[in-house]
Amino acid sequence: MKLPLPIIQRIGIHTAWNLKAHLIIKFMSKYYLSVGVAEDFIANTLSAVGVPKSDAVIVANLMIQSDLAGADGHGIFRLPAYIKRIRAGGINLHPNIRYEREQGAITLIHGDNALGHLVMAKAVETAIIKSKQFGVCWVGSHFGNHSGAASVYVRKIAESGLIGIYMAVGNANHMAPWGGIDLLLSTNPIAIAVPAGDQPIVLLDIATTVAAYGKVKLAAQKGEMIPEGWMIDKKGSPLIDPARASEGSLLPIGGHKGYGLALMISLLAGSLNNAAVGKETIDFNMHHDLITNTGQAIIAVDPSAFGDPKEFIMRVKKVVKDIKNSSRLPGVQDIHIPGEGADQLAKERRQNGIPMSQELLDTLNNCARECGVVPLYL
Amino acid sequence: MKLPLPIIQRIGIHTAWNLKAHLIIKFMSKYYLSVGVAEDFIANTLSAVGVPKSDAVIVANLMIQSDLAGADGHGIFRLPAYIKRIRAGGINLHPNIRYEREQGAITLIHGDNALGHLVMAKAVETAIIKSKQFGVCWVGSHFGNHSGAASVYVRKIAESGLIGIYMAVGNANHMAPWGGIDLLLSTNPIAIAVPAGDQPIVLLDIATTVAAYGKVKLAAQKGEMIPEGWMIDKKGSPLIDPARASEGSLLPIGGHKGYGLALMISLLAGSLNNAAVGKETIDFNMHHDLITNTGQAIIAVDPSAFGDPKEFIMRVKKVVKDIKNSSRLPGVQDIHIPGEGADQLAKERRQNGIPMSQELLDTLNNCARECGVVPLYL
Repeated sequence: MKLPLPIIQRIGIHTAWNLKAHLIIKFMSKYYLSVGVAEDFIANTLSAVGVPKSDAVIVANLMIQSDLAGADGHGIFRLPAYIKRIRAGGINLHPNIRYEREQGAITLIHGDNALGHLVMAKAVETAIIKSKQFGVCWVGSHFGNHSGAASVYVRKIAESGLIGIYMAVGNANHMAPWGGIDLLLSTNPIAIAVPAGDQPIVLLDIATTVAAYGKVKLAAQKGEMIPEGWMIDKKGSPLIDPARASEGSLLPIGGHKGYGLALMISLLAGSLNNAAVGKETIDFNMHHDLITNTGQAIIAVDPSAFGDPKEFIMRVKKVVKDIKNSSRLPGVQDIHIPGEGADQLAKERRQNGIPMSQELLDTLNNCARECGVVPLYL
Repeated sequence: MKLPLPIIQRIGIHTAWNLKAHLIIKFMSKYYLSVGVAEDFIANTLSAVGVPKSDAVIVANLMIQSDLAGADGHGIFRLPAYIKRIRAGGINLHPNIRYEREQGAITLIHGDNALGHLVMAKAVETAIIKSKQFGVCWVGSHFGNHSGAASVYVRKIAESGLIGIYMAVGNANHMAPWGGIDLLLSTNPIAIAVPAGDQPIVLLDIATTVAAYGKVKLAAQKGEMIPEGWMIDKKGSPLIDPARASEGSLLPIGGHKGYGLALMISLLAGSLNNAAVGKETIDFNMHHDLITNTGQAIIAVDPSAFGDPKEFIMRVKKVVKDIKNSSRLPGVQDIHIPGEGADQLAKERRQNGIPMSQELLDTLNNCARECGVVPLYL
């Protein structure tokens, strides 16, 4: 999906005179939206349905961070769903996001059913300040909402020279316990980011399932089958037709291990914060008006508490370099370090724009029109 | 492997008069060693090679916790290897295990190349005290050694009503990076324990590889093949003959996801603590005299910082109950909650003894004789 640079640059030169920062380019069947256009569009649309402008700007910026990292299903793609939820009354547009509890290096944030990005922005800000004070801090939150890719928040922490860990209870249960049928668990993601100086932040962002549910839905849209090992049906047989996804369960990574990890994240990011887990989970795709009570947790650690942070960075870079330069299996071009792909993609997308399909552009523009906002193409 | 209770109880009654707490029973081809006998035996053997008696007692108790939890490869089974290392001069028998750094809720422990259990005992003690003070704490350590099953330490934290998380850099590299050949990663375990009141502690203890290397070695001993998906050879083909294990790499759970998780644990439990990782790792099975500089990390969280801890326990129990009572796949008898198997096993083994093979008993007794200690059978 990498865009051939000379061509886009050529197009860029021809169109730059009238598009400047607000660049929308069509190449092949895809549109490329500049970060500035995308952020303005999101902020304007959110603002049009009642989100205070300053909040809308913050949310727009954070949403686009997901797109920059390549988490295409977690960025601007979600705008229509957020708008739907806002219009259904499922989001508090004037929330009082507050510290419900504060004890030593622990903070529990009450998100007051705000847009999830605002709750996580507060959690990250808190985590950065408190980990510098205590060396480590744990910020739990409840009454949040979907807030995009997990990587966005741990990246912000790592950009401050700290280590960030994020866990969340997903907003829809697509996984059964190991050996079970009932969908009581979500894809509960965990993300970990470690700063690496002048090298890309080492950043892992994984769901505890083999495949994200979004990938299953995408395959269904395209009319493609999904690989064995992604899902099973209620008899335990492989489910490969994504059109039947609602009849089955996603499979956890490592079998019972991933099930255990998902359950533990439910307890740490959900039960500990008194957020919704298991049967209490509100499927945000089904119920737009109900409070999801999303639970999230952020841990931040200050490497300087352990010694000279520069030496820590050097050690991290050494590990990365050794892996990067190690021998490869036949046919493997490159050994990937978690986070370097997203880092590279972010650079490309900042320069060339965020790619999106005609279909997504149409959906976004329909959403914009419904909100009385100028659509993306003129 | 569950022992038929009426029979062992009958044997118990007949032999109780002369064995009491020091119970060794042979049933079928297995011996059952009472916890008391096992602990005394370990403590005496360690003491015979120079470990101060008070330390030997602590280590013996912690080693047997691994056996009680069913982590048979991490308990008394390891005694001969520990003795070998001690005799080779690879362990500091009079260590100064100390706080190298202390900043807020962070402590970095210097293990001074002590027996790993002593370092982790100090780490757990620290974590319990500091998490009650700060709500959360992070205790890193370096210059430790192998300390048995990860579950032992998070269980101790959960027994204090706290949440425990443990991560460690393994003492031998058996995994290549995803797409690579060179063995630069260990099976790096993570364990998480959450208290559940009168119910078993919810406890996950997993390696980040599909199978532990011990299981591969066990299959080799038995002359059995290992399943596809456990290991690959240097061409990336499935390796199913465990006799060829040294030519291959263990596979991570969830492919690139488990690779990423193992790498992150290397950074958090290793690089952050200035412990050995990657190329620096000393294979403790190969080099008995070299300092392993094992890195470990413990995080403890006090649920009372988030609200009434009783309500938290009730929420945890609710999640567990809902999963436990949920519908099962055809042929599945029971949905397991992480930790309940180990809890049940510990009860059985406390009552009936720790099972071990004739082979292991012989090995332990040879080890004892070499140390001038009374062997296990009389």
